[in-house]
Amino acid sequence: MMTTSEYTSEVEKVIKDLALGRRTPEALYQPIEYALSAGGKRLRPVLTLMACQAFGGGYTPALKAAAGIEMFHNFTLLHDDVMDNSSTRRGRASVYARFGTDTAILSGDTMLTLATQLVSEVPDTQLRRVLDVFNTMAIEVYEGQQLDLSFEHRADITLEEYIKMIGQKTGALLGASLKIGAIIGGASDRDADYMYEFGMMLGLAFQIQDDWLDTFGDASTFGKPIGGDIANGKKTYLYIMAMNRGGSDSQLFATAMALEQPELRIKTVTRLLEKMGIAEECRKAVAAYSSKALSALKRTTLGDEAKDALRKVAEKLIGRKK
Amino acid sequence: MMTTSEYTSEVEKVIKDLALGRRTPEALYQPIEYALSAGGKRLRPVLTLMACQAFGGGYTPALKAAAGIEMFHNFTLLHDDVMDNSSTRRGRASVYARFGTDTAILSGDTMLTLATQLVSEVPDTQLRRVLDVFNTMAIEVYEGQQLDLSFEHRADITLEEYIKMIGQKTGALLGASLKIGAIIGGASDRDADYMYEFGMMLGLAFQIQDDWLDTFGDASTFGKPIGGDIANGKKTYLYIMAMNRGGSDSQLFATAMALEQPELRIKTVTRLLEKMGIAEECRKAVAAYSSKALSALKRTTLGDEAKDALRKVAEKLIGRKK
Repeated sequence: MMTTSEYTSEVEKVIKDLALGRRTPEALYQPIEYALSAGGKRLRPVLTLMACQAFGGGYTPALKAAAGIEMFHNFTLLHDDVMDNSSTRRGRASVYARFGTDTAILSGDTMLTLATQLVSEVPDTQLRRVLDVFNTMAIEVYEGQQLDLSFEHRADITLEEYIKMIGQKTGALLGASLKIGAIIGGASDRDADYMYEFGMMLGLAFQIQDDWLDTFGDASTFGKPIGGDIANGKKTYLYIMAMNRGGSDSQLFATAMALEQPELRIKTVTRLLEKMGIAEECRKAVAAYSSKALSALKRTTLGDEAKDALRKVAEKLIGRKK
Repeated sequence: MMTTSEYTSEVEKVIKDLALGRRTPEALYQPIEYALSAGGKRLRPVLTLMACQAFGGGYTPALKAAAGIEMFHNFTLLHDDVMDNSSTRRGRASVYARFGTDTAILSGDTMLTLATQLVSEVPDTQLRRVLDVFNTMAIEVYEGQQLDLSFEHRADITLEEYIKMIGQKTGALLGASLKIGAIIGGASDRDADYMYEFGMMLGLAFQIQDDWLDTFGDASTFGKPIGGDIANGKKTYLYIMAMNRGGSDSQLFATAMALEQPELRIKTVTRLLEKMGIAEECRKAVAAYSSKALSALKRTTLGDEAKDALRKVAEKLIGRKK
């Protein structure tokens, strides 16, 4: 196994070799190149390459599929940014803000088909399995996004619904990234399913951790202003836990969330979440899902070296600094 | 071979059996069912079924793929309606107008993946070929749509560019509908390619005919108000022919197109197009592409009965009443 940054640079190479910026019509392809050139950790395709290599035969057979996974992820960002009216993405203008709604839609559509083509660049004997995992995952992601949109207008979201939503929106793609890599590497159905479970649980832990960091993290390492979710009234794991507690605690929380002045609201809500013990419960949930992720990994027939490498990536992902 | 209306009702049945209206989240799937319930001739999937049956083994093996083709077509309509800001579609509110931009985008994305899944419901031995035709076609359609959008801001479009655009936007899907049906029916690569050419040329003839009908057709059978393209300043085959004629004719045409009052503009431009002989040239182009379509059909190894049935559908499509 290689280091994650070595895998990342392999992913960068494949994406660069697609030479999207040289395709015509330019107005369709340059926004795609723009979106993909923003960099990032390339977490999902790195997982695909690692899973492939873990099951044998190296990582190169999974390079195109890994690029397809990254393309799919970026397609969802293009369309999500239109729906969320988001003008920035990874510290620069989103495709939506820079090129407009029409381009974000149409270049996004193109990315989805390009992703499907890339993911299909596997031997014929694996095509059906890989394609099924990919398409099923895509449907999960859309359903999760729809659920997320619907949460904005609802006050009665259960924790179960929230977990379902983040499982579809975040977990399914991490699961599919690992499962597709595993299939290409020659994994059995059973092992491939464990890898999916590993990714799904990792996705849940990651997203709940992200919710926690948004309120309790350290601005210098988190990359976003702390308290943004509270300021925007976002329905996070913390929010839903607090609202489902019931009694005077929930009433107090709702009152605090209704404070007009953002800084005061952030300060009051943050203290309340600590006092209610929700900050702690949130950390416990992250630990519980991380542990489920690692136990799925453990159940695979992989050797110790491969398991160790994958465990380390998982721990690095969840162990993000406060 | 059956009648086209018999094939149409088979397509309706498959679409109904998808039971999209019963899937959750409802907010994602009901707009899809709404879009697909508007009916229409189901031209593209009917061509898929006919092509399959023409090459043997009946039409049933192509039913799912045919539904996938129709799903893809409707996905493009959902997204196009956002880009064109179109509030009506087949005589009722478009998904965009009725459910909003976010739903049109996200339900559209879902339809693209559902279409890919449906088109993949073919035997493993055909999966690669069918999927390649489908994905290549999808890319053509996006490129064509991008070209079409860019035409709005350009005054110097060549006839060649226009033909390329309608080939990508309309021809490629008709070609792929026929080619996918042919592959499922067991056609050779050579026959499948001729079927694609048949559909591509038919698509060009159909689109140019549509441009002609918009100005010179009969309101009672055309289904849209006559002169709409002139009123909206649309870059049609007629428009591009007139602007590329050069000299005083083109200047006169540009002046007429700039008339403020819509009815006067329609009347003046229509007369000018007749006087310039462009109405006639347009009809000749339709005849020429129709003839190319039929000669591609002729070159297949299909028997006379199958050729006759496909020729009749083509003639019915182009022979639409004035």
